[in-house]
Amino acid sequence: MPYKDEQLHEEKVFKDPVHRYVHVQDRVIWDLIATPEFQRLRRIKQLGTSYLTFHGAEHSRFSHSLGVYEIVRRIIGNFTDREHWDNGERLLCLCAALLHDLGHGPFSHSFEKVFKLDHEYFTQQIIRGDTQVHTILEQAEPGFAQKVADVIDKTYEDQLVVSLISSQIDADRMDYLQRDAYFTGVSYGHFDMERILRVMRPREDQAVIKYTGMHAVEDYIMSRYQMYWQVYFHPVTRSAEVILSKILHRAKYLYENQYTFKLEPFHFVAFFNERPTLDDYLKLDEAVVFYYFHLWQEEDDAVLRDLCERFMNRRLFKYIEFNPNQQMKDYQELYRLFQETGIDPDYYLVVDSSSDLPYDFYRPGEEEERLPINLLMSDGSLRELSRQSDIVDAISGKKRTDHKLYFPEDDLRSLDDGPVKQRIMELLHLDEPWKGARNHAD
Amino acid sequence: MPYKDEQLHEEKVFKDPVHRYVHVQDRVIWDLIATPEFQRLRRIKQLGTSYLTFHGAEHSRFSHSLGVYEIVRRIIGNFTDREHWDNGERLLCLCAALLHDLGHGPFSHSFEKVFKLDHEYFTQQIIRGDTQVHTILEQAEPGFAQKVADVIDKTYEDQLVVSLISSQIDADRMDYLQRDAYFTGVSYGHFDMERILRVMRPREDQAVIKYTGMHAVEDYIMSRYQMYWQVYFHPVTRSAEVILSKILHRAKYLYENQYTFKLEPFHFVAFFNERPTLDDYLKLDEAVVFYYFHLWQEEDDAVLRDLCERFMNRRLFKYIEFNPNQQMKDYQELYRLFQETGIDPDYYLVVDSSSDLPYDFYRPGEEEERLPINLLMSDGSLRELSRQSDIVDAISGKKRTDHKLYFPEDDLRSLDDGPVKQRIMELLHLDEPWKGARNHAD
Amino acid sequence: MPYKDEQLHEEKVFKDPVHRYVHVQDRVIWDLIATPEFQRLRRIKQLGTSYLTFHGAEHSRFSHSLGVYEIVRRIIGNFTDREHWDNGERLLCLCAALLHDLGHGPFSHSFEKVFKLDHEYFTQQIIRGDTQVHTILEQAEPGFAQKVADVIDKTYEDQLVVSLISSQIDADRMDYLQRDAYFTGVSYGHFDMERILRVMRPREDQAVIKYTGMHAVEDYIMSRYQMYWQVYFHPVTRSAEVILSKILHRAKYLYENQYTFKLEPFHFVAFFNERPTLDDYLKLDEAVVFYYFHLWQEEDDAVLRDLCERFMNRRLFKYIEFNPNQQMKDYQELYRLFQETGIDPDYYLVVDSSSDLPYDFYRPGEEEERLPINLLMSDGSLRELSRQSDIVDAISGKKRTDHKLYFPEDDLRSLDDGPVKQRIMELLHLDEPWKGARNHAD
Amino acid sequence: MPYKDEQLHEEKVFKDPVHRYVHVQDRVIWDLIATPEFQRLRRIKQLGTSYLTFHGAEHSRFSHSLGVYEIVRRIIGNFTDREHWDNGERLLCLCAALLHDLGHGPFSHSFEKVFKLDHEYFTQQIIRGDTQVHTILEQAEPGFAQKVADVIDKTYEDQLVVSLISSQIDADRMDYLQRDAYFTGVSYGHFDMERILRVMRPREDQAVIKYTGMHAVEDYIMSRYQMYWQVYFHPVTRSAEVILSKILHRAKYLYENQYTFKLEPFHFVAFFNERPTLDDYLKLDEAVVFYYFHLWQEEDDAVLRDLCERFMNRRLFKYIEFNPNQQMKDYQELYRLFQETGIDPDYYLVVDSSSDLPYDFYRPGEEEERLPINLLMSDGSLRELSRQSDIVDAISGKKRTDHKLYFPEDDLRSLDDGPVKQRIMELLHLDEPWKGARNHAD
Repeated sequence: MPYKDEQLHEEKVFKDPVHRYVHVQDRVIWDLIATPEFQRLRRIKQLGTSYLTFHGAEHSRFSHSLGVYEIVRRIIGNFTDREHWDNGERLLCLCAALLHDLGHGPFSHSFEKVFKLDHEYFTQQIIRGDTQVHTILEQAEPGFAQKVADVIDKTYEDQLVVSLISSQIDADRMDYLQRDAYFTGVSYGHFDMERILRVMRPREDQAVIKYTGMHAVEDYIMSRYQMYWQVYFHPVTRSAEVILSKILHRAKYLYENQYTFKLEPFHFVAFFNERPTLDDYLKLDEAVVFYYFHLWQEEDDAVLRDLCERFMNRRLFKYIEFNPNQQMKDYQELYRLFQETGIDPDYYLVVDSSSDLPYDFYRPGEEEERLPINLLMSDGSLRELSRQSDIVDAISGKKRTDHKLYFPEDDLRSLDDGPVKQRIMELLHLDEPWKGARNHAD
Repeated sequence: MPYKDEQLHEEKVFKDPVHRYVHVQDRVIWDLIATPEFQRLRRIKQLGTSYLTFHGAEHSRFSHSLGVYEIVRRIIGNFTDREHWDNGERLLCLCAALLHDLGHGPFSHSFEKVFKLDHEYFTQQIIRGDTQVHTILEQAEPGFAQKVADVIDKTYEDQLVVSLISSQIDADRMDYLQRDAYFTGVSYGHFDMERILRVMRPREDQAVIKYTGMHAVEDYIMSRYQMYWQVYFHPVTRSAEVILSKILHRAKYLYENQYTFKLEPFHFVAFFNERPTLDDYLKLDEAVVFYYFHLWQEEDDAVLRDLCERFMNRRLFKYIEFNPNQQMKDYQELYRLFQETGIDPDYYLVVDSSSDLPYDFYRPGEEEERLPINLLMSDGSLRELSRQSDIVDAISGKKRTDHKLYFPEDDLRSLDDGPVKQRIMELLHLDEPWKGARNHAD
Repeated sequence: MPYKDEQLHEEKVFKDPVHRYVHVQDRVIWDLIATPEFQRLRRIKQLGTSYLTFHGAEHSRFSHSLGVYEIVRRIIGNFTDREHWDNGERLLCLCAALLHDLGHGPFSHSFEKVFKLDHEYFTQQIIRGDTQVHTILEQAEPGFAQKVADVIDKTYEDQLVVSLISSQIDADRMDYLQRDAYFTGVSYGHFDMERILRVMRPREDQAVIKYTGMHAVEDYIMSRYQMYWQVYFHPVTRSAEVILSKILHRAKYLYENQYTFKLEPFHFVAFFNERPTLDDYLKLDEAVVFYYFHLWQEEDDAVLRDLCERFMNRRLFKYIEFNPNQQMKDYQELYRLFQETGIDPDYYLVVDSSSDLPYDFYRPGEEEERLPINLLMSDGSLRELSRQSDIVDAISGKKRTDHKLYFPEDDLRSLDDGPVKQRIMELLHLDEPWKGARNHAD
Repeated sequence: MPYKDEQLHEEKVFKDPVHRYVHVQDRVIWDLIATPEFQRLRRIKQLGTSYLTFHGAEHSRFSHSLGVYEIVRRIIGNFTDREHWDNGERLLCLCAALLHDLGHGPFSHSFEKVFKLDHEYFTQQIIRGDTQVHTILEQAEPGFAQKVADVIDKTYEDQLVVSLISSQIDADRMDYLQRDAYFTGVSYGHFDMERILRVMRPREDQAVIKYTGMHAVEDYIMSRYQMYWQVYFHPVTRSAEVILSKILHRAKYLYENQYTFKLEPFHFVAFFNERPTLDDYLKLDEAVVFYYFHLWQEEDDAVLRDLCERFMNRRLFKYIEFNPNQQMKDYQELYRLFQETGIDPDYYLVVDSSSDLPYDFYRPGEEEERLPINLLMSDGSLRELSRQSDIVDAISGKKRTDHKLYFPEDDLRSLDDGPVKQRIMELLHLDEPWKGARNHAD
């Protein structure tokens, strides 16, 4: 039997808290999971800095990747023998599902912004480059790696295949909503996936949903809405993210200015130069990042040292709501006041906007958007979800940007008393009983 | 109000997947959680290498510690106003619960064995030494740190207090069973803790259980039994543990033999010398360990390099059942055969016994044992659980030792064909369809 | 100690699948639960005919009543020692919570409509009339029964007390959403009640919600929305309700027309005459109703016999969507055609509208509405929920009426072929592959 | 396509709280569910009088029967294409699973004992008699009804088929343990059924379990053990059962002694005469029983009236532990004392033994026992579970009989003071603070 079609002697399972079991029957899948590139995902947290808000959120991209694979496996199980479904695409779907996040690095969001990286680019590189993953895929079939890369890149010609991995109701999202809800412990994020899978139908260029399942889909959309505001955009998580970005900025700045680190940060150098090779990239995981942050807590540079100490020991910035349209003058005044006190505002007075974040909950009409969700009506026609569902219509397209101003409350309170401190306190409302700041999951 | 009695303006909560919420009212508790020593527990996995078997088991000792604190908080809530309970011990109980695992390092089991460490010793050191934890405790009350240390050391005079943290049915075990079950996703580990807490009663020197709750306690004992065999002693986890121990042994051996590492392993030196200071100890976490294992994948020493590569990429040893009473001759023959092939048997042919592991499920009569579980009968007398419960009696004291022989199947299969390889295959049953090896959660 | 303040020697608990345990400490509550009037609620299903759609929905009003009591007990536990809360109202709240549904009869919706009854009137009667419940309440304090009745009637002067039992986010709704979700098994209906209780605050005339809990309340509102459309308004349930109403109508009609029943329906006579006494009312439960329906399956009257046989054996009507604004002519034609075939359209061709049903999910502005949900902002002001929450604003006030036309598909298919049958088939779309009808939980 | 092989146009589902969905593909199954004989199971509670202890236990035999069907459907799905499995038996298995409890009547345990009935006999009668169920089965294939009856009777020649419905680990038990746990809300009763189904293998004459699943089976056995003692044998449930039996005895006695009931109990007459026809039997459900108990609360006979009032209003008997070997003299004295007070001891002083109850948890060796559980070892041999599992060995065969003495505490306390009352109080320990009696789920 060709390697591509080889089945394991006995099905293997992984115990999974979210899907109960992840089932593997294909030799190719089993071998891909065993590669160093895939095992590396164990050392990268699925939710980056969220564990500092929700202590349960310590799960890795490894478990999420298995979960996406499992959902696609179940979808395909339901598609078998249905019109529009070509079972020859089965292994391709499974591989793309398993590998879709392969290029994620540690704390992707901050790293990508500061070092101008793109995890999707690296996913492509790993699949097509000189890696064990690549070897296995090509062993399955010459050219197979490119096909997998195309599916993940959304350019594969069979858009039905693409839609399983990336659309508004794809296996990726269905897994992460449930998984992130499970590990954070929040009561949102639950929906009836079993029902959604039961009413999903293959069409020529996408998977659609039988209209009898509309309410289950509404529930899924609402879960997303709640998860984004309650978990993904949580201001405490963003506080940690702000500090992390500033650490990376500072280290890069020091490197560019010939600062001598106590230990040469050789894992970072290619990133500082913005030219990491695939090998540089694969060597970077959260353990490595934490190692340097450990060391940097003892660096001479006070800013780097302080920020690292804050990040490692969760001494985060506090925040207030901030309206950039009305409060720029306040911001400018604060900037000057910070300078006067010797607290560098470029690192310690930070505006962060949720709209910077790469999440959306449902925007059917926008450009560059993933495929909208289509309902399959009883007469066989398709109808876009928000045209049928009052509740989805009501929330779709509502862009709620939320700006916050972050600052080190503890340091500010330690300033010498005087008019400068007093004015800072006023502008940041630190003279009033504390308003609005939330901690942990409160 | 004295610091010791200070309450937070508003109660704070942590969202916890196991207990729903962890509630904090005391300023002292809040401040302890914020210390670097406590935050460090986020970088140490609760279940060490188990995540290589159960991919969900990525949770840290940080969340377990919060959980133990929360359970003790609830127990005390039920004890208030009951006879035998002195509410003056409340904060002491909470602190001891929160801090009881403070001295754990990364992969404690292997590290302790190889480097002759004792995490309980370090817990004491952190509480009594020059740390932020110590400062806060002493600020609460001079001498308070010592009291907390004594409770954890089980030498505190009020044994009722001790029993909440360490007995056969303490908050520690009740948390870890449920937490480890939740994160691994296994269906064992559940029991009706709410009922157990409801029937727990303070007595002079221990907490006892009203006999009407006996069945809930039986269920708890059975959960322990199942968790030990299904999770804690899982042979795949032990395979990873075997490799980890061998890495540490090898690195120590190389260090002692003046091997030159590409990067001086300065975080490890004090451990190699078996004289780590408190500072050395606190600096070691899993990130640091992984960092060196990363580096060592490129070391010149073939054994260290290979073992690290195996650990990082989960290329584990396989195993067979092994009976030391009957198979020592086979072992000796294998040892010689391995030597002939150039595979160092000291690192690659390893017998591991579950009885080495520090777990027990219920042994009421043994020396040095934690307090047995006592039932409070309707006439006010106490009765040891296994004398009342058939089912606990049936399993208590049953010591089931389980020996396995671990080896690198992949390398052995790659040996040149010939009589040596053939004999090895025979002795390890690799010539037959594979028997008995389990992977992941199967 | 006066009876009113008497505590049970040991707290009693009921094991409850939804709230884990229901706790009873007060002698008065314990005694009320033991009355025949309260025990009678065991023989009345919480969801009436829904069990014919969701087979798990066999739970009674007894368990719901305990659940509402338990939620109020927990709310009060959180209110203790807070401003605006008078602990003297505690027992009153608990009694009102426990007894609020006492006047419900079997299949209330249909019975009330056909026999012009009002369960709220009977709740009042039971509390104030010559019953064991009344005796116990008066024993607690003369005039106490009237107070309890006033709270349930919403006329009690302390509106904070009233709001716990009846407002847009009261204990009644919080219990039934969760309980009905649990027993039907649907994945909707879940929300984080523990969090809502934690952020609920007493104000002078109502309980309000700290704005930090807004998202939990949004989730609760969404649960209501989903439960109404997925469970409470389910068209199959309404089909059973239609048949039930027609049975009652027919029996009343026959009685009024001097029809001789094989067994005098003496439990029903007072209802047929629309003058049931409290005693008549209390004697009617579902067992009695089923008993007569059993008998009536053997009555001479064909309509009564057939409808009862349909109800008992779940041979329900099918339905199509129906638009009264556009399809009245079709309806009139069908009415005539039914008459021609000898199928009495008054019993077998029925339009049912969801807007007839007594549910709403959130209508802050309407007349006669329960109190809207108010958020307690950080500056101490109140703000109505839909003004703060985009998502609640989006769905509130949206009245979605849904009309369906019910008919006996089986009988129609058995008609002799011919133009009459053919036209009926056309008008009811029975000639096309079946559209739109759902069965069970599909 | 022959009726037997007919598939529904679209699969139908029932939402089930325990198994999420029950799936129906076969026309025959769909039609069987719609029969009056099967729908009748909705009016018979799965757990008889347990709802008086666990208020959630209001679920019917209807939902259990669907559950057993669903489990068998899943088992067969796993068996397909495996050796030893003949897919020609598929529909037979499904029908037998669905119908196996068809002959249960209301409160079977008491009714069977008092009226000398046997529900298994009636299951056979319904399947083979003049019923809609019979018609459908014969339409599927002449002689099919008899085959189904044989499977349920355990006499069908293919014992593998029989073992799915009745063995020590059959679909019946797997459903009821989980279902009863779910509805009562107890934390016992859970086990990893998905895993058990995954390791179940067909053999010639039974289904066996791969030894790798032994721990899941241990957990299942322990769940049974806990459910029996915590739920099925709960002394409060047995108290209700005692009263119920006494009602039936009294009514029969009165009938036999020409007592004139206010309403002729015509549904009961055939039972009093111990000669119910199939039609008599099918007409009896819980609604009918409750109807008569309602009426009998107003009968002239004081015993019948009182017992019915107790049962309907849950005014149960209290109990004490009773040892028949040592306490017969006490019993005899109490019997005489009761007579003196005018309380008829034949109805009001009742010894009840758990060993009378038809449950066992695991008795591999006994006569007339269901097939024991066999493990399929890695070498292909079979091994009986208790020989492999320490823990099952420890509990199997342990017969724990538990006797209790039931009596009306309330009436006894109302007796006139004097030596008789005093002696009764002493013998029943009513003079001491109450010992041992549990209420509800405590």
